[in-house]
Amino acid sequence: MVSALILIAEGTEESEYTIVYDVLVRGSVSVSSALVGSSSTSADPANPHSAAYVTCSRGVKIVPDLRLPDLEGGKALEYDALIIPGGAKGAETISNNEDVTKLIAAMYGKGKVVGAICAGSLAIKEAGIGKDAAITSHPSVKAELDKEYTYKEERVVVADNLVTSRGPGTAFEFALTLVEQLVGKEKRDEIEGPLILPSGATIGHAQSSPDEVTPKE
Amino acid sequence: MVSALILIAEGTEESEYTIVYDVLVRGSVSVSSALVGSSSTSADPANPHSAAYVTCSRGVKIVPDLRLPDLEGGKALEYDALIIPGGAKGAETISNNEDVTKLIAAMYGKGKVVGAICAGSLAIKEAGIGKDAAITSHPSVKAELDKEYTYKEERVVVADNLVTSRGPGTAFEFALTLVEQLVGKEKRDEIEGPLILPSGATIGHAQSSPDEVTPKE
Repeated sequence: MVSALILIAEGTEESEYTIVYDVLVRGSVSVSSALVGSSSTSADPANPHSAAYVTCSRGVKIVPDLRLPDLEGGKALEYDALIIPGGAKGAETISNNEDVTKLIAAMYGKGKVVGAICAGSLAIKEAGIGKDAAITSHPSVKAELDKEYTYKEERVVVADNLVTSRGPGTAFEFALTLVEQLVGKEKRDEIEGPLILPSGATIGHAQSSPDEVTPKE
Repeated sequence: MVSALILIAEGTEESEYTIVYDVLVRGSVSVSSALVGSSSTSADPANPHSAAYVTCSRGVKIVPDLRLPDLEGGKALEYDALIIPGGAKGAETISNNEDVTKLIAAMYGKGKVVGAICAGSLAIKEAGIGKDAAITSHPSVKAELDKEYTYKEERVVVADNLVTSRGPGTAFEFALTLVEQLVGKEKRDEIEGPLILPSGATIGHAQSSPDEVTPKE
């Protein structure tokens, strides 16, 4: 089974994290998330029912599946994709973590899919990968990227194994592109109908009318 | 400040919950969520750092802000809106909870905004409100609604204080419509640009080009 690791930190943009996680799972990808930095709460090791959570950019509280130490010993490199969501504060924490930028560079070097959306694209720059490649981001961080990359205004930009996108409203297209890259176009087409996306969000893919598919939700 | 209460249960569709929460907060709405039914984990009352979370339909783990008992004594009726996300299992738990269907009916009767998306529309029927009104839902539950309501295939349907929508891919439009109803069109227009939605998701609203706005993310 194809697998993906999504990073999360205090202040991550919750819709970007959640949409990517949700759509990848719909696309038959095995998804885990890993906390970068500290979280709002800490789990009590003596209590199996306690859980640490992060408070996202607009207050949604999310429990990460893993923490970075769980991935030591090269375990992170076994994933087929590494995804970095946005949210100004979360993206800053992720970009400033040297273990993480080394991981991004290692995954990219191995030809794994590296995806970043919104301010998450800043971590691509910090990792020093894909210089001069086509890239996009949230417009608010364009000025930090357009000197070292070929900056595009497109909603999703694919440059070999680097996939970038712009914001919460492009997250479905970003995630569907990742499914297409990781699993294939057939799977993308299969899961696209029941999501009921706006017609403008299909980027050249024929979208089935919701009533022509067998919806699962 | 205008306020909204979003319901959540094991199996809630995580993107619908998160997008609505996120966009309402961007729209200056004070948002709280409340757990219906039991959760994957229970918090330890002796440990302030423990948190109960629900596992959503595709595995995202979310910590609700409140539980139903926190809202006893009429506190739920103080919110300006009540929102029901989809996800087959989550919507079933919400629809089958008599305290919740009574609350939905009471909020609707008081003229508060009642919103439901995807399979969440089934809770509207269980609450017995708005009979014959225009309604929509995920296509997969249309047959359970189209005899008692005027079923529409539109992406967001507003019938007085009842607002319904179709699925994860319509959640941004649903949430923006709720912002428009609760706060006003000016606020909707202000927050729409930085989200960078597909042009088809603006339902008649002029969408600013991302570079013409002052993005915040």
